Amino acid sequence: MTAPAPDAPASRPALSALTDDAGLLYGADWNPEQWGPDVWREDVALMQAAGVNLVTVGVFSWARLEPAPGRYDTDWLDQVLALAHAHGVMVDLATPTASPPPWLGVRWPGARAVTADGVRLSHGSRNHFCPSSPHYRERALAVVRALVDRYAGHPAVRMWHVGNEYGQVCYCEHCAARFRTWLRERHGTLDELNRAWGTTFWSQRYGDWGEVVPPRAAPYLLNPTQVLDHRRFASDLLLDLYLEQRDLLRERDPGTPVTTNFMGFHGLTDYRRWAPHVDVVADDVYGDPADPDSPVRVALTHDLVRGLAGGAPWMVMEQAAGAVNWRPHNVPKTVAQMRLDSLRAVARGADGSCFFQWRASVFGAERFHSALVPHAGPGTRLHRAVVEHGAELTRLRQVVGTRVPARVALVFDWPSWWAAEEPAQPSDRLRVLPQVLAYYAPLWRAGVAVDVVGPDADLSGYDLVVAPQLYLVEDAHVAGLRSVVERGGVLLLGPFSGVADRDGHVRTGRFPVPFADLVGGSGEEHVPLADAGVTVRSALLGDFTAHDWAERVRVDDGEAVATVDGGDLDGAALVVRRAHPSGGEGWYVATTPPQEVVDAVVDACLRAAGVTGALAVRPPDGVEVVRRGDVLFCLNATDEPRTVPLDGAWHDLLTGADVADHVLLAPHDAVALTERTS
Amino acid sequence: MTAPAPDAPASRPALSALTDDAGLLYGADWNPEQWGPDVWREDVALMQAAGVNLVTVGVFSWARLEPAPGRYDTDWLDQVLALAHAHGVMVDLATPTASPPPWLGVRWPGARAVTADGVRLSHGSRNHFCPSSPHYRERALAVVRALVDRYAGHPAVRMWHVGNEYGQVCYCEHCAARFRTWLRERHGTLDELNRAWGTTFWSQRYGDWGEVVPPRAAPYLLNPTQVLDHRRFASDLLLDLYLEQRDLLRERDPGTPVTTNFMGFHGLTDYRRWAPHVDVVADDVYGDPADPDSPVRVALTHDLVRGLAGGAPWMVMEQAAGAVNWRPHNVPKTVAQMRLDSLRAVARGADGSCFFQWRASVFGAERFHSALVPHAGPGTRLHRAVVEHGAELTRLRQVVGTRVPARVALVFDWPSWWAAEEPAQPSDRLRVLPQVLAYYAPLWRAGVAVDVVGPDADLSGYDLVVAPQLYLVEDAHVAGLRSVVERGGVLLLGPFSGVADRDGHVRTGRFPVPFADLVGGSGEEHVPLADAGVTVRSALLGDFTAHDWAERVRVDDGEAVATVDGGDLDGAALVVRRAHPSGGEGWYVATTPPQEVVDAVVDACLRAAGVTGALAVRPPDGVEVVRRGDVLFCLNATDEPRTVPLDGAWHDLLTGADVADHVLLAPHDAVALTERTS
Amino acid sequence: MTAPAPDAPASRPALSALTDDAGLLYGADWNPEQWGPDVWREDVALMQAAGVNLVTVGVFSWARLEPAPGRYDTDWLDQVLALAHAHGVMVDLATPTASPPPWLGVRWPGARAVTADGVRLSHGSRNHFCPSSPHYRERALAVVRALVDRYAGHPAVRMWHVGNEYGQVCYCEHCAARFRTWLRERHGTLDELNRAWGTTFWSQRYGDWGEVVPPRAAPYLLNPTQVLDHRRFASDLLLDLYLEQRDLLRERDPGTPVTTNFMGFHGLTDYRRWAPHVDVVADDVYGDPADPDSPVRVALTHDLVRGLAGGAPWMVMEQAAGAVNWRPHNVPKTVAQMRLDSLRAVARGADGSCFFQWRASVFGAERFHSALVPHAGPGTRLHRAVVEHGAELTRLRQVVGTRVPARVALVFDWPSWWAAEEPAQPSDRLRVLPQVLAYYAPLWRAGVAVDVVGPDADLSGYDLVVAPQLYLVEDAHVAGLRSVVERGGVLLLGPFSGVADRDGHVRTGRFPVPFADLVGGSGEEHVPLADAGVTVRSALLGDFTAHDWAERVRVDDGEAVATVDGGDLDGAALVVRRAHPSGGEGWYVATTPPQEVVDAVVDACLRAAGVTGALAVRPPDGVEVVRRGDVLFCLNATDEPRTVPLDGAWHDLLTGADVADHVLLAPHDAVALTERTS
Repeated sequence: MTAPAPDAPASRPALSALTDDAGLLYGADWNPEQWGPDVWREDVALMQAAGVNLVTVGVFSWARLEPAPGRYDTDWLDQVLALAHAHGVMVDLATPTASPPPWLGVRWPGARAVTADGVRLSHGSRNHFCPSSPHYRERALAVVRALVDRYAGHPAVRMWHVGNEYGQVCYCEHCAARFRTWLRERHGTLDELNRAWGTTFWSQRYGDWGEVVPPRAAPYLLNPTQVLDHRRFASDLLLDLYLEQRDLLRERDPGTPVTTNFMGFHGLTDYRRWAPHVDVVADDVYGDPADPDSPVRVALTHDLVRGLAGGAPWMVMEQAAGAVNWRPHNVPKTVAQMRLDSLRAVARGADGSCFFQWRASVFGAERFHSALVPHAGPGTRLHRAVVEHGAELTRLRQVVGTRVPARVALVFDWPSWWAAEEPAQPSDRLRVLPQVLAYYAPLWRAGVAVDVVGPDADLSGYDLVVAPQLYLVEDAHVAGLRSVVERGGVLLLGPFSGVADRDGHVRTGRFPVPFADLVGGSGEEHVPLADAGVTVRSALLGDFTAHDWAERVRVDDGEAVATVDGGDLDGAALVVRRAHPSGGEGWYVATTPPQEVVDAVVDACLRAAGVTGALAVRPPDGVEVVRRGDVLFCLNATDEPRTVPLDGAWHDLLTGADVADHVLLAPHDAVALTERTS
Repeated sequence: MTAPAPDAPASRPALSALTDDAGLLYGADWNPEQWGPDVWREDVALMQAAGVNLVTVGVFSWARLEPAPGRYDTDWLDQVLALAHAHGVMVDLATPTASPPPWLGVRWPGARAVTADGVRLSHGSRNHFCPSSPHYRERALAVVRALVDRYAGHPAVRMWHVGNEYGQVCYCEHCAARFRTWLRERHGTLDELNRAWGTTFWSQRYGDWGEVVPPRAAPYLLNPTQVLDHRRFASDLLLDLYLEQRDLLRERDPGTPVTTNFMGFHGLTDYRRWAPHVDVVADDVYGDPADPDSPVRVALTHDLVRGLAGGAPWMVMEQAAGAVNWRPHNVPKTVAQMRLDSLRAVARGADGSCFFQWRASVFGAERFHSALVPHAGPGTRLHRAVVEHGAELTRLRQVVGTRVPARVALVFDWPSWWAAEEPAQPSDRLRVLPQVLAYYAPLWRAGVAVDVVGPDADLSGYDLVVAPQLYLVEDAHVAGLRSVVERGGVLLLGPFSGVADRDGHVRTGRFPVPFADLVGGSGEEHVPLADAGVTVRSALLGDFTAHDWAERVRVDDGEAVATVDGGDLDGAALVVRRAHPSGGEGWYVATTPPQEVVDAVVDACLRAAGVTGALAVRPPDGVEVVRRGDVLFCLNATDEPRTVPLDGAWHDLLTGADVADHVLLAPHDAVALTERTS
Repeated sequence: MTAPAPDAPASRPALSALTDDAGLLYGADWNPEQWGPDVWREDVALMQAAGVNLVTVGVFSWARLEPAPGRYDTDWLDQVLALAHAHGVMVDLATPTASPPPWLGVRWPGARAVTADGVRLSHGSRNHFCPSSPHYRERALAVVRALVDRYAGHPAVRMWHVGNEYGQVCYCEHCAARFRTWLRERHGTLDELNRAWGTTFWSQRYGDWGEVVPPRAAPYLLNPTQVLDHRRFASDLLLDLYLEQRDLLRERDPGTPVTTNFMGFHGLTDYRRWAPHVDVVADDVYGDPADPDSPVRVALTHDLVRGLAGGAPWMVMEQAAGAVNWRPHNVPKTVAQMRLDSLRAVARGADGSCFFQWRASVFGAERFHSALVPHAGPGTRLHRAVVEHGAELTRLRQVVGTRVPARVALVFDWPSWWAAEEPAQPSDRLRVLPQVLAYYAPLWRAGVAVDVVGPDADLSGYDLVVAPQLYLVEDAHVAGLRSVVERGGVLLLGPFSGVADRDGHVRTGRFPVPFADLVGGSGEEHVPLADAGVTVRSALLGDFTAHDWAERVRVDDGEAVATVDGGDLDGAALVVRRAHPSGGEGWYVATTPPQEVVDAVVDACLRAAGVTGALAVRPPDGVEVVRRGDVLFCLNATDEPRTVPLDGAWHDLLTGADVADHVLLAPHDAVALTERTS
């Protein structure tokens, strides 16, 4: 049940099969099962008017499709697909397996998931299935088979959408058995499991595979490697579920691409292991409009997802047009934000921009989630903006299929994240995603393109590699990271990096153990800081006070860039670097400094690596600049107008206007410029 | 198991049967089972000295009455009742069914309630029974039968008190079965259930009644209509428990009134469905002395409870004399607050003011709850105040049976409250009770009498009807609310009103859908606000910054009273009104403005409706003014003296003093004035 | 299963048997099962170099010792013990029963503990056993028998260490049965249980022993005496576990002392009942380096533990050398703090200073807990300090066996603490340990030695007895406390003292009921204060504002030391005292005043009792002064140098320097002075 070998990484023509016909994809989840035929007809007419060319249908329709075990009702779907096709709307047809009907869990209680506390969950919400339940799996495959046998080759059905937002964890006995199988495959022998899990600690040695259980409720801290392996397993188990359906769909409808919707930096699924198995990389993106960092955060997520697609085009499968419903206080996107978010995805490599959902539900738990057709109907500001944006996207057709070239890589790894945030780490104030954002933000502001990659990536094409908090580094990945410096590039390591090995064991010796020689300094103690922090002197970065985190690092054969002044850490080198004969540099930031200090470190590394942004100069504050193919996107995420300096003469695809030397961006406005050759 | 038709609403002579004999009722819960006969004798002597004329006996005495199943011991109760009667103290005899003895749940584990997580609760506290358990119900009726058969017609027993503070919820299989029965009665068919619950959403369609369960622990958001119906059911289930006993008592002791104790705005019981079935409306009132809004909050609750009694007299069954024990930090009432709280209830229609409890327990979980006889004994400041207050109440006898006339109605509805505060609403910063208080407070401060009524009430007698956040409005209630304006009255709707129908489905169209034409404006988007809020201009109300909540409302054929200035909501009309040919006005406040803006809106509506307060002028700050029958109550809830202007010459029933033109109130003092005919 | 009679309190030669050979004990937990023989050999060499003379071995080695039920593997331990012995390191050999191997709970699920919610806990952490499980107990005794039979008389094994940090609670049926047995022994009859638990409250009367259960999850507040007795029982149950092993070890290896590690003010174990049954009182001490009060808090804990040892020497079994891993943010000790903490223990009576742990684990939940040998190896600042401290301790050999004489007793009692902090007390802002610290701090600052004792202690040797918040006082202990005043001493009672009796019943009458006449004032109402607090006037203490807590106290035949000015409590005497013909004084502080007011009260009581500190004058701020035997310890817990005035001429054992008149202490430095007779 470990993930199979990735598919041949071909050139993935799957998405282009759709975009060749339709240009940039634009659409939404469509839930016709919530409405009657009159509304369906109004829907498809409105879709056509709005330029919608793709809808995802049937994500939660299992109970409608199979009202009783083995009794299928597809007439309604026949009509729906015919209507879509007649109006030029392609369908991404979903398998409805994310949410089984009540009858499943009532007939087979074991098909419902169990929490770590042993509570068997109820239906009445969604996603309550146990991913290991034989009954769930059997009935899920049966309904998928019924669907594919009916709709394989249907002219409306251009893509299969398997399940929805995989993210369950279950602790039942079925799952325990699958966990054991997975562990046997990973570790081979029980001795090796005992070694990897460090079971001599706290008398946890397993004498029999049958003694191994998932990390259920226990009196105190759980074995961290057990927890880490369980997170790996839980992701692989869901992938296994996906693959069962994917294989069935491929077998019976070989020509149609298969996908599922990812969720960016989702904590329960290592998408690096999933991405090779989807024909189209599709992501759900729900930035919080109330968060001022949202544009940066969302851009980072797009760069992650583009990396999952190997740099090839991907698509946004879901985003909100206005408000969501699941935050405590759901500030809606403005229509300007809706448009800017959509263009941001396109700028960062998306060939499709879809929404959840087409028409607002009037019942159910998501009735207050926004939609392209609000409760108040199409005669609304929001729907008018939807129509305008549909038209605008057709003017960007030339970006379809193009890429976003990058000379900077940012290393992010799911298992390392999981391991770094287990309980009983030195400090819960050091968190991976905030560190990743802190190192990404200056690159975003500089208009520097970034690929977010795994530690096993081929790094040979990058001049600067940033690993913000790469806590866990497998032995097999050390050489690749080291080679960046060895061939003349710059490697920038953030705090608490290189600490653990593949099993989460702490590497003994002076840290960052696998890289200490590369950065020219080495540490012996992690020092979560008292609230007052420590004073740090740095000629290059400016003096600062470090809070939360420091490490007792000495300079070896490198250079101290920033040094503690006073107190018990006096003299500790919190930023070290070493220049190498190759021309490369190794940097280590052994603290969590203020953002402006991180900015200065990143700027210094960019200079050392000779990397510049998409513009000749630094973009104005709050303006995001990305070059995709031949198109230069400038997005103003601020409430104020901004003037962006340009070299030469350009043409804005969105407005058709010509500009030269600079372009003026209204608040929340954007341009998509191509160079005029004139 | 739905609630039966209300009893013939007769004139409810029940309470007057007691007050005719005794005047205003004054007393407490008395728990003689915690003490021996010597203390009983001291108790009744002290009661007589304090003017106590009513005690509630036996609320938690089941284990004492029935130490083993079927073995009853009532000798002690014979003595207690005889002692009370001999000292002129009437008894409200409780059925002891709120807390079964340990033997019940040990013999029949299914008689213990189960949480939504599946945990079966233990005895050792109180109220641990499952309301659907056949064993609980059978044993409860048996002990009630034993009681009534022994004490029917006993001269001391003047009222039956069924159970105590009903408020359990249980998720066991017995309760699931009753839930299904209730749903069948409500919805008739499974198709109708599926429609009402919107089960096409998230694949929740029920194919069989047996698949329907209470809203148990689930992985994510539950179906909101399932949750709403379950809350309705849970209240009706408890009412059904009450009625079983009520019917038995009526059958065997037809002459004696039956009641139970309500808890004001309690979240688990829709008292509008209960009130028709109690002979005396009795309420437990526990305002927090540490809360400066407590006087307003408690007055609001009294007006709610008086409404439950149809405007007829009611009584306070429980209140604290000093501190309670169940808050984290229990600031006690001062003796002045104790007296003022008691007079507040009388002013607002209560014909009885009783306390929990007579004598402080020395053991058990409520040993630090205050009592009329403290641990330190009767020679204490608190007990002396109790005696004085008893004497004082006799001087108010003339208010007995009189009413509090009101021209203003405030609409509050339990199902609407429940529906509005489900998870996954637009914002958890918009809460019903705070909205209700915000609109009630200016009426309280103006000395304007208010009836709190349901949306199904006969509104024809009111000149102003305020619905602070009436989220859910059944179709059947729309006409009654609209008629207020149509016949020349003023209807004031607070934010997020008229959103949902009876099943909690969102009404489609421009909101407030059933009332948009009435208020002359309509909205298309709910806008939880970013923390900075929005600037609002209003000539009538003064400019203000709105926080938390706004709605994208446009003016149709009404008038913009307050309009957003700038930002994405620029031009949105956050307060609209429309004057009608009838002379009536419709108002809609589509935001949560600062309190002073709510005050100004309410004042404008009062002026439009021609409603004034109990005084010719606005009462001084912090002085509560209520007219009950012929008596004008003025209560000073502040720490400072206050002068209340009066027209004419008055006589204070409490002190016997005559005043004219004005009356001076000491801090926390009160007067009860009758007009002197000179 | 109640605790047996204490052992004959002999002079406890157990610890001296070790210290006679080795001087002050110095060492750590050693976990060789986590490493191979090469590391073992490096370990013992490093131990020898560091002056380590005692290691605790095998605490978590059950799975290593008994990989399958009944199959023992002790070869590795043979080697480990031989290596230790060969390098002059004594071994404290642990029974490994704190954490059973997975096979135990898999074979016998009932051997795993159950929470109050009914969740049966899993293995994968530690300490997951049910203390009542017959299977756990049987297997635990079997492995202990195997160990003792192999190692009794082994020259390396100088002490037995039973289990580890006892602190489990389980709510399963086995534990319920033992609870009943314990209750029968405590209460004799069911009638007495019903009386003691006050089961007439809320209908909780038990008709059969079988109905009695532990305080499992219930709908609301539990019976407070049930909870209190359960806490007593839970401690006794663990003690019973300990005793089973202790008795077995004594029987089979009579010459070797037996201990277990206490945890200071641990909430689940009444160490007063445990202490008579350990041969060596040993404590685990984990002060938080980020807490500025840590030196005072730790000193208080040491004084508690010394009291458990009856004033005789004790030892620190565990402390951190740097950081721990279980706080959210683990600020490490500096090496200066590590040394100062160790010397603080010696100053306060410890004859041993041991650490957790010797070598840092690289896996398991404690991999980020510091150790004497860090991950970065012995060539680190921390390890160098460890070696230096080992040498330094040898220079203090003369303190071995000596005592810390005290004229002040501070009364602390576990059952009183438990009872005082149950839910539904008047205020959760009044907490026992903060009160204890508030009254201890001024004594610490004054350099006054304090014995922390139980309310049943012989108080005849003390001139001042302080009971900071002695909520529960058994009748049997009243006379002893009263006698302090009667024979001319000073008794100082903190707020909310003397409230409850042995069963937690509130004593009726004016409080503090058993002592009101002694302090000359009496109260009638507990008054948790509104946030503004109350103004208090005091000529002696200075005026102040009281927050959180006050009591309505009047002066009887004593003297008001501090009186409320204004508000509802106007005139209440918040501090009262009474001078007695004996020359003694009784004081009662009926509030929680600012710390400087507590300081003033304590200073006044010290003056009244004629007690002075270890120096002729008050020590400088932040300098801790303790006299142990002939040695005067001065510890500077501040970041600044301090000059300590001295009478006469002294010799510093740590540095060998002679000083006179004063000694200069560097930041975080210490001296251990003996008087020069010159």
